[in-house]
Amino acid sequence: MNWINNPIKPASASYREQASSRQENLTKPPGSLGELESIAIRLAALQQREQPSLDKVFISIFAADHGIAEEGVSAFPQEVTKAMLSNFIAGGAAINALAKLQGAELEIINVGVKQCDEPFEGLLQQSIAEGTANFSKQAAMSSEQLTSALEVGRQAIERIASQQADVFIAGEMGIANTTSASALACAVLKQPVDKLVGAGTGVNAEGILKKQQVIEDALAFHQSQLNEPLSILQHLGGFEIAAMVGAYIHCGQQGIPVIVDGFISSTAALIALKIQPTLADWLFYGHQSEEAGHQHVLSALAAKPLLNLNMRLGEASGAALAVSILRAACQLHTQMATFEEAGI
Amino acid sequence: MNWINNPIKPASASYREQASSRQENLTKPPGSLGELESIAIRLAALQQREQPSLDKVFISIFAADHGIAEEGVSAFPQEVTKAMLSNFIAGGAAINALAKLQGAELEIINVGVKQCDEPFEGLLQQSIAEGTANFSKQAAMSSEQLTSALEVGRQAIERIASQQADVFIAGEMGIANTTSASALACAVLKQPVDKLVGAGTGVNAEGILKKQQVIEDALAFHQSQLNEPLSILQHLGGFEIAAMVGAYIHCGQQGIPVIVDGFISSTAALIALKIQPTLADWLFYGHQSEEAGHQHVLSALAAKPLLNLNMRLGEASGAALAVSILRAACQLHTQMATFEEAGI
Repeated sequence: MNWINNPIKPASASYREQASSRQENLTKPPGSLGELESIAIRLAALQQREQPSLDKVFISIFAADHGIAEEGVSAFPQEVTKAMLSNFIAGGAAINALAKLQGAELEIINVGVKQCDEPFEGLLQQSIAEGTANFSKQAAMSSEQLTSALEVGRQAIERIASQQADVFIAGEMGIANTTSASALACAVLKQPVDKLVGAGTGVNAEGILKKQQVIEDALAFHQSQLNEPLSILQHLGGFEIAAMVGAYIHCGQQGIPVIVDGFISSTAALIALKIQPTLADWLFYGHQSEEAGHQHVLSALAAKPLLNLNMRLGEASGAALAVSILRAACQLHTQMATFEEAGI
Repeated sequence: MNWINNPIKPASASYREQASSRQENLTKPPGSLGELESIAIRLAALQQREQPSLDKVFISIFAADHGIAEEGVSAFPQEVTKAMLSNFIAGGAAINALAKLQGAELEIINVGVKQCDEPFEGLLQQSIAEGTANFSKQAAMSSEQLTSALEVGRQAIERIASQQADVFIAGEMGIANTTSASALACAVLKQPVDKLVGAGTGVNAEGILKKQQVIEDALAFHQSQLNEPLSILQHLGGFEIAAMVGAYIHCGQQGIPVIVDGFISSTAALIALKIQPTLADWLFYGHQSEEAGHQHVLSALAAKPLLNLNMRLGEASGAALAVSILRAACQLHTQMATFEEAGI
């Protein structure tokens, strides 16, 4: 996996300047379109075009199971991962409705769901194992499995890079994956569990205390292995989270902007940024999730999310919604008249 | 203008319950779509349908000049009102790009712009006078003019009601209209000027102090006339603001949901709600503007805006952007599978 250290593409300073000067001349008081102005300028610099656009939106949902679910950390049974995968394929999930609304391409990838080896039409089978190991007892994955999971993410970006993607969105599904994400965030940020553990799909206060205890014990158990980001990911991560890390890094390498979704995606971004700090340029943050730890991860990343609608679903839903904001920024930037054109 | 006291249509409790129960059964943890769930439930109750929708979006921009501009309260000369009106007609303004993006019908109405009586193709000429009077010296408008301006708003809603509008958005254009809106908000909320006066299109700190002084003097001058909302509107308002008040009230009477835009629109909503408190059900708030007073008006209305992107342009731009959020809420509500349908 040497590819992971390949350089991140730089944004274009000249397209940034050009876009910035255009924004100053559009028929509005300077600055009055707020974030929409900076988004357009940033996208022009990243896409290296005079006219940034968000026509080709690609969404990949990575699904996998988690051994840590054995510890009773989720409000839903593990079988729900596979059931929701079927729902994605059948078109009945939230992300299906949002992808359709946005005219986005949606791809569903099995990176390691339990008992899910039959060929489903519309499902990309790239399963690494039937879920990770229970990280309260051993490393969540072997180093070979980590390499494979990162590679699944890289390949997703290879597929869309050849199709001139304007933006990439990753989503995830995996019962117990907020427990994995919280453990990862605690290890990377060296913050206490009570700041980074929340209700996930909806455990009660007692369930949250249990999650905290499971994570605290696991952090102590793996302590000597938690000094660098890939090792943290191997010991506490999920296959779908590692795939997102690989996908985000390869977006930066290929020059494709990303909209990061909620808590789990942001934790993947946190790890990707520890490996490749200049990736930061390429990441937009779609929304502020209700999941308790998200706010802490976002502030550690100095990230300002575009939306705050108390969502906490995952599966790329918040990022898919934020496509509307980025798209509006592009339309305003390219379609508005300048003061000169309008004769003002 | 007896029509203004006609009853506001009630939302349907049975459609609300039905939509609420559907949300509980969709394939997601209950509550995980946050605001999108409550928006869908609210729209179902307002539109009195099983499947709320946001297909038919109507935007009316009301433009007018303000006598108070004589006091030097704006960063732009008064001629900009007419110039921007031409820009709306030519399709070069922010709202043109956003209306196109959202597939919305856009109508431009001259309610009282200076030296703008020639017929423009695509402009609805309903001018009441060449701007309001300077409210630092006399009432901004006569009671007949107020009646006419409210009527312009009512007629805009009559036109769209016959076209099965799913939602209505009002926008405004008028140099110096933040000064009028701030004065109105001060009079209605009985709050000091420093809380409700901001930079408008971009005056500096000195300009803000001047605006505050002009408003404070005007509030003292008209004090005996500022006891009820229509009289406040007559003495301190603008024709475009009064048209928005009339339009909002008639939306509630006709059963058309509204997305309120920024500071000036919210001030119109504030006055409309003083006249018809039950109109509150019908009003969504598109965004939190950067204009200083907006936050105070929103909190007086106990309103939670959908977006917060530091916009401060007016001309319906924030509300037009928020169409994406309401539309997504509708799509999710109608297209997602229930747990039963998905066999989960």
